[in-house]
Amino acid sequence: MSPSDARGYERLDDTSLRQWLSGHPALSESLGGSAQDWLVSEVGDGNLNVVFLVSGPQGGLCVKQSLPYVRVVGPSWPMPLERAYFEQLHYATIGRFVGALAPRLLHYEPRLFAMVLELLPDHRILRQLLIEGQRLPSSVRRVAEYVARSTFATSVLTQSFETVNRQIAAFLPNEALTRVTVDLIFTHPYMSHERNRWTSPALDTVVEQLRSDSELKGAIGRLGYRFLTAHEALLHGDLHTGSVMANATDTRIIDAEFALYGPVGFDLGLFTGNLLMAYFSQPGHERIAGERDDYAEWILEEVVAFWQAFVDHFSRLWSQTVSGDGYPPTLFAARADTLVMKAEQDRWFRGVFRDTLGFAGAEIVRRIVGFAHNADFESIADPAVRAGLEQRALRLARTLLVTPERFASAQELVLEARRDRNL
Amino acid sequence: MSPSDARGYERLDDTSLRQWLSGHPALSESLGGSAQDWLVSEVGDGNLNVVFLVSGPQGGLCVKQSLPYVRVVGPSWPMPLERAYFEQLHYATIGRFVGALAPRLLHYEPRLFAMVLELLPDHRILRQLLIEGQRLPSSVRRVAEYVARSTFATSVLTQSFETVNRQIAAFLPNEALTRVTVDLIFTHPYMSHERNRWTSPALDTVVEQLRSDSELKGAIGRLGYRFLTAHEALLHGDLHTGSVMANATDTRIIDAEFALYGPVGFDLGLFTGNLLMAYFSQPGHERIAGERDDYAEWILEEVVAFWQAFVDHFSRLWSQTVSGDGYPPTLFAARADTLVMKAEQDRWFRGVFRDTLGFAGAEIVRRIVGFAHNADFESIADPAVRAGLEQRALRLARTLLVTPERFASAQELVLEARRDRNL
Repeated sequence: MSPSDARGYERLDDTSLRQWLSGHPALSESLGGSAQDWLVSEVGDGNLNVVFLVSGPQGGLCVKQSLPYVRVVGPSWPMPLERAYFEQLHYATIGRFVGALAPRLLHYEPRLFAMVLELLPDHRILRQLLIEGQRLPSSVRRVAEYVARSTFATSVLTQSFETVNRQIAAFLPNEALTRVTVDLIFTHPYMSHERNRWTSPALDTVVEQLRSDSELKGAIGRLGYRFLTAHEALLHGDLHTGSVMANATDTRIIDAEFALYGPVGFDLGLFTGNLLMAYFSQPGHERIAGERDDYAEWILEEVVAFWQAFVDHFSRLWSQTVSGDGYPPTLFAARADTLVMKAEQDRWFRGVFRDTLGFAGAEIVRRIVGFAHNADFESIADPAVRAGLEQRALRLARTLLVTPERFASAQELVLEARRDRNL
Repeated sequence: MSPSDARGYERLDDTSLRQWLSGHPALSESLGGSAQDWLVSEVGDGNLNVVFLVSGPQGGLCVKQSLPYVRVVGPSWPMPLERAYFEQLHYATIGRFVGALAPRLLHYEPRLFAMVLELLPDHRILRQLLIEGQRLPSSVRRVAEYVARSTFATSVLTQSFETVNRQIAAFLPNEALTRVTVDLIFTHPYMSHERNRWTSPALDTVVEQLRSDSELKGAIGRLGYRFLTAHEALLHGDLHTGSVMANATDTRIIDAEFALYGPVGFDLGLFTGNLLMAYFSQPGHERIAGERDDYAEWILEEVVAFWQAFVDHFSRLWSQTVSGDGYPPTLFAARADTLVMKAEQDRWFRGVFRDTLGFAGAEIVRRIVGFAHNADFESIADPAVRAGLEQRALRLARTLLVTPERFASAQELVLEARRDRNL
């Protein structure tokens, strides 16, 4: 069956879900009891899909199914079902490299465009935790480890190009969600488009300025070109803080339906942009002025820790590699080559850092003036407060997009963020 | 039939070729007469394939067939037949954009991995003309136009990413010949490998130095990574002066079996590297010392003209484009955006130029110390003379690989080439 064969598709509901799970002994036995004993709740709070949580006497499962349209909009915005196929292919591809950093894929049903994943009952969405002001000691570092492991393992730095080319070819048909990224991140926010929205009228002038900001448009054009042409590694493709589920001891990265080959800095940039938005939005969640100041500083430390953890994990993997057609290790086997290989790696990381800054800026812009907004800002009831914080974030975003080369380190990035916040 | 289904394959010979052509009325009628009237000659002088030239009372044809191994080596180096499939796919993809700059594809026979192309009876291989010291007024500019037209048309600068992704996916399986490029251009010349050869013993020390030149190996590693990850446009993939057939009024680019998506500077760099080798080798073709000095200067002018013609053609196409997901034109519609779009284009050309210089250096190195050598140097009988000229070319190649950023223009490149030649 091809990834896009929609004959036989039906939208699951409570009844058909129980019936379908009952037909799969491995799944129903892991739940325990029989179909009528299971607790089923529908929790799809994302923009796109239906998600059921199922609990039985023995255990739980999560079932995720594609809808033929964008859930938050409805049938007026059709969206091919096959995104479920690419999400499960992503889990299947990176599973052995990231281990428990991704949810375990238990089953995929091509006919229904539905996958069954392990239930994460004690986990909460990282974005929500950041809005509540909770500190998780290791989550951000674990996300960095996930990016390092998944991108390194799927790149020519450790694989033959033949292996990589076949993976690129497998994910290139994930067109519908790539189209969403191209339109919603790289195009619509910088022009007049019916899908855009923003805190109005407070930001009307800002939005008008943004659309006539030639330099900014040049920068987003360059980044979009890089996104479409640099096939460095298999990306998650939508790595924001809402794609991370965490508790004090465990972190999982979910919702990989945007999976595609692209520049490594794209995943890093989206996540960094979301951390920065968590930072800028903190005053909007205060009951007493200043009570989140310490917490906001903690987020800045996490921004630095995120980049550093990525570099540490990726460097370690790269130093251990013994094959791969990119920088073939056979060419750098002599002791005297160690120095130049280290210099090349530093240069490579500098390029990824520059990409990261640009994509972080693009993510901030699109979440404030584009179609899909973040709860970090959206949950701030007072539009005047929200608009003021959004404007500060947009200011940083422009700097990151237009002059990423100004920043030599993650420390310099967070210093600039702090300056913009305190304007 | 899949591109790699080899059931039914048979190597064509004089008899089976006549029989096969007779079975295709459109082809046999264009030849005129009947099978026994045709003049058939086998001219495969390349490294890989069998090529027949067929002439009849009415006209001629060229038949090119894959062999299951590398022709110049024999069955000990197997090579999948499917390269003929990718070559004809390349002609079919770029035909409407490059017009008469590529040979006309008349027929493709999947079973035989054979294609029929128009005969080019009045044309000669450009490399041979350069060795003879002949000036062709427009050939080099026409090759630049070919690169500009074919790369622009197949890029996201004018196409939707969906269209481009499908083309990328169609060419990614051209693995066998991409492996040849990865090994023979980016890896083997920089290490000890049985397929390498060079003018020995004169260049033994030079080759030894090259293999322990850490900086050079860092540079070739970086370029190889870029070749494998930057999928900017559909490339010819083997654009040397032996892939160009020309006469005083017409220029055709042939032998596109290496076709793949890659960085635009790769085609430009290979061709520039070959022009530079033609330049360095000129003294070896002199009967009287200095008689080729003027001609050598003419080649340097052509190197500059090649880059300038590429920029001119590509800029003109880019200025006319009305769609494409890279730098989407809708974002740059206002008068005030013209300036920034021009700045972005200049930046893009600077990046392509840097790539071009690096790939030119890589091509020179691999043709002098790797597996496949050039007649420019090989036809110089005196090894001492040949080695001296090769060494000068290698000197420039190292500069281009290690410090491409030193060169702001094609003029600066040819000044450096002249300095190296006169050492």
